[in-house]
Amino acid sequence: MSIGIGIIGTGTVGSGVLEILTTRTESLSRAAGTPLKVARVAARFEHELAPWKALGIPVTTEVATLLDDPEVHIVVELAGGYDLPRAWVTQALERGKSVVTANKAMLAKHGGELFPLAAKNGAELRFEAAVGGAIPIIRALREAFIASDVNSLACIINGTSNYILTRMFQDGMGFEQALKEAQAAGYAEADPTFDVEGIDAAHKVALMATLCGGRRVDFEKMRVEGISQITAADVAGAKELGCVIRLLGLVEVHPTGVDARVHPCLVPQAHPLAGVNGAMNAVFLDGSTTGPSMLYGKGAGKMPTASAVVADIVDVAGILHRKSPVHDLSWFGGEEAPLFPTSDVEGPYYLRLQVGDKPGVLARIAKVLGDSGISVSRLIQHEAIPGAEGVTMVVDTHVVREGALLEAIARIDALPETVAPTVVLRFYEKGVGA
Amino acid sequence: MSIGIGIIGTGTVGSGVLEILTTRTESLSRAAGTPLKVARVAARFEHELAPWKALGIPVTTEVATLLDDPEVHIVVELAGGYDLPRAWVTQALERGKSVVTANKAMLAKHGGELFPLAAKNGAELRFEAAVGGAIPIIRALREAFIASDVNSLACIINGTSNYILTRMFQDGMGFEQALKEAQAAGYAEADPTFDVEGIDAAHKVALMATLCGGRRVDFEKMRVEGISQITAADVAGAKELGCVIRLLGLVEVHPTGVDARVHPCLVPQAHPLAGVNGAMNAVFLDGSTTGPSMLYGKGAGKMPTASAVVADIVDVAGILHRKSPVHDLSWFGGEEAPLFPTSDVEGPYYLRLQVGDKPGVLARIAKVLGDSGISVSRLIQHEAIPGAEGVTMVVDTHVVREGALLEAIARIDALPETVAPTVVLRFYEKGVGA
Repeated sequence: MSIGIGIIGTGTVGSGVLEILTTRTESLSRAAGTPLKVARVAARFEHELAPWKALGIPVTTEVATLLDDPEVHIVVELAGGYDLPRAWVTQALERGKSVVTANKAMLAKHGGELFPLAAKNGAELRFEAAVGGAIPIIRALREAFIASDVNSLACIINGTSNYILTRMFQDGMGFEQALKEAQAAGYAEADPTFDVEGIDAAHKVALMATLCGGRRVDFEKMRVEGISQITAADVAGAKELGCVIRLLGLVEVHPTGVDARVHPCLVPQAHPLAGVNGAMNAVFLDGSTTGPSMLYGKGAGKMPTASAVVADIVDVAGILHRKSPVHDLSWFGGEEAPLFPTSDVEGPYYLRLQVGDKPGVLARIAKVLGDSGISVSRLIQHEAIPGAEGVTMVVDTHVVREGALLEAIARIDALPETVAPTVVLRFYEKGVGA
Repeated sequence: MSIGIGIIGTGTVGSGVLEILTTRTESLSRAAGTPLKVARVAARFEHELAPWKALGIPVTTEVATLLDDPEVHIVVELAGGYDLPRAWVTQALERGKSVVTANKAMLAKHGGELFPLAAKNGAELRFEAAVGGAIPIIRALREAFIASDVNSLACIINGTSNYILTRMFQDGMGFEQALKEAQAAGYAEADPTFDVEGIDAAHKVALMATLCGGRRVDFEKMRVEGISQITAADVAGAKELGCVIRLLGLVEVHPTGVDARVHPCLVPQAHPLAGVNGAMNAVFLDGSTTGPSMLYGKGAGKMPTASAVVADIVDVAGILHRKSPVHDLSWFGGEEAPLFPTSDVEGPYYLRLQVGDKPGVLARIAKVLGDSGISVSRLIQHEAIPGAEGVTMVVDTHVVREGALLEAIARIDALPETVAPTVVLRFYEKGVGA
C-alpha cells in the first residue's frame, strides 16, 4: 500500500518538504517500508501551486479538498498561524488522518485539545520541526532518553535573538544596531517582537517542558522576558566576568511543579551553550542516567526545518503501513502542571544599576542588599561618563532566592538616587566543566 | 504479551541496565506498549548474580541456558570481547531472538556477518550504546537525519584521549603525565593502547562511516593514528594558532569512496568540537539538508551507556509486541565501501620539525617544500633550548594534497639536518562559524 501525503502550504518550509519528497522518493520509501507519494498540495493561490502541478502532483486552492481526498493519509500542516491550522488539523484528525506540523504556536496553544483528539481517532500528531528545526529534540525526549528523567534543560531556541546577542558580543554594538543588522541579513522580521521578546522561544519551551514533566505547561503562564533591554554595557560586563549573554529557555522539573521560563542569562564561556553562536540553536539537557548532553544545529531555515518534517512523515508512514498502534499523547489534555514559583528559584545573579553620582549612594544600596540578606560577590562602580545620567554599578551576587532579590531590586529602583530600572540577569552555570 | 529480556554480563554496564530495568519497569513498559520483564541474567560467577537472584530474577552461569530460555525474547550482550559474544549473538539470532549490544569491537569486526543473519531470522540487532554512549547518534543517522545525505562527519568519540588532550591544553603537561593523571582518575586503563592509539575510536568511526555511506567500511583498512606522539610543544603551538588538538574520527563520503580515518587534528577554538572537554564525546555532522549539527554527551560510563541500551530494548520490545517488520541492515554484509585514498585529501596542515641548529637548514627545508608545491602560510623557528637536540620549527601550510605533503615530509625526514621524525597534524576547519 502506498502512503499518500497532503501538504498544506507551499511557503519556505512547504517547498523544502516538497523538494525533498520529490527528489528522495526512493530512499525515503525504503526507510518507511512502503512507497510514499505526494497525493495533493494545497496553497492559497494558483501561482504558488504551478511548479508542483507541473510535476503532475494534484493541487488545490481549497484545503477542504485536500482534507476530503481519500488518497491523503498524512496531512502536513505548514501554513502557520493559530486558528485556521487548528481547524484543519482538527478536521484531519477527526477523519483519522495523521498530522505532521511545524506549528509551535498552534500546539503550545491548542495541544491540550489536539493531542487527545489524535489519540481518540487513532492518528499520529507529530511536531519535531516545531522545536529546534533540524535538531531531533522531540525524538530525543520521547525515545532516546526514555531511560532517563530529564529534570533539567536549558536551550537556545530562537535564532534571531541569538544572532543579535552574538553580534553584540563580537562587535560591541548595541541592541538596536544589532537588530538592524539581523534584519538586513534576513535573520529578523520587520516586526521582531515575537522573536526578541521571547514569545517564539516560550512556545517551544512549553512543549519541551510538557514532555520533560509529563504534564502540560501553559506558555501563557511562564515567566518570559526578551533581550531588548540588554545594552552593550551588559554584554561588556558579562565579558569581564568570562561570560556571554544568551536568551535561554529553562526547564526544571521539581516534585511540586515545573519551572519553565525564558529570559536572558549570563553563561560562562566554558559552558557548551556559550559556544552556540549566530542563528544556531542548541538544547542542553541533564538526564538522571544520561548525564549532561547537548543537541546543536540549525533551528530554522527552509531545508533544516523541512528535514525534520520529512523524518516525521517517514516515521508516520511506517506506522500506518504496519498498522502499528499510534503514540498516545492524550495526557497532554489532562491536568496542567503547576508552575514552580519563580520566587523560590535560587542562584547567583548579575545586576546593573544606574544611580546618581553622589557620595553615599553605594552605602544605601549596600544597606538594601544587606537588609534583604543578599550577599554580594563582586561590585564594580564605573566612572561617570560625561553627559550620561548617573553612573553604572555592576553587582554579582552569591546564591540568593529570586523572590528576595526581586524585592530588594524593587526597593533599590524606588530610591531617589536610582535613575533607571535595574537590569537583573541570572547566571546559568549548570553543566560547566562537564 | 510480556517481553522477556535476557542480560549477558553483570559488569558496569550490565548492572546499570538491570538497575534501570528493575526501577523504571512501569514507565518503560508504557513506552514499549507492552510489559517488560527481566527473564534471565547470565554471568560467569554466582557471586556476580547474587544481587539479581535476591530480587527474584532467574539467573545462570551458563549463557546457553539463557539463550535456550523460551522466555527470553531480547538478548542483551554486554560481556565485551570479540569471539564469545560473536558466538552468543549468532546463536541468539539463529533462534530468531533480537539482540541489543554495546559491543563496538564485535560489530566493527563481524557486523558484515551478523546484520544479514539478523535480517534473515527476522530479528533486530541494535547497537546505539556501542557508539558514543548516551549520545543518540545511531538513531540520528538512521531516523532523524533520514531526509539528509550525511556526507561529512567529525567526532570526538574516545573519552580517554580527549581527557588527556584537555589536561595537556589546560595545564601544559606532557602526554605521559596527563596519561598518568587519567589513569589515576579512572579515565584510562592500565594498558591504554586501545584508547590512546585510536583503535577504540576506529571501531566506532567504521560503524558510523558505514551508516553514512550505505556500504560497510572495514576499520582495519582505515588510517588510524593515536595521540601518544603529541607533545606539550604541539599543544602550545596549537594554542598560539587559536586551536586545540583533538583526536578526531573523520568521515567524508565521496562519489568514488569513503574517507574514514582517526588521527589528531588542530581544531580552531571557535569550532563547536573545540569546546568538548574532558571525557565528553561529540559527533559533528553536516547533512545535505540539515546543515551542521552536533550531538554532545557522555560517551562512556555505567548509566549513560546503560541508558542507550535500555532505549534500544524499549524500541525492540515495541517492535516485537506489534509484530512490526524489523529494520533490515543486511546490506552491511554486501559489497564493502572502497576507501577514498587518503593521499587525495586536501587541506591545510601543521608540521613540527626537529632540526639541527645550523645555518642553511631553513633554506633546505623551504626548498623541499617548494619543490613539492607546498605553500607555507606561516613558519616559526623556536630558539634553541640549551641541552635539547636541535631546534623546533613549526610550519603551517596552505591547502595541500596530503599525498604531496607526506612525500615532502619523507624527504625532510631523510635530510641529515633532521633530528626527529616530523609531526604532521591536519587542521579541521569545517563548520567553524556555522
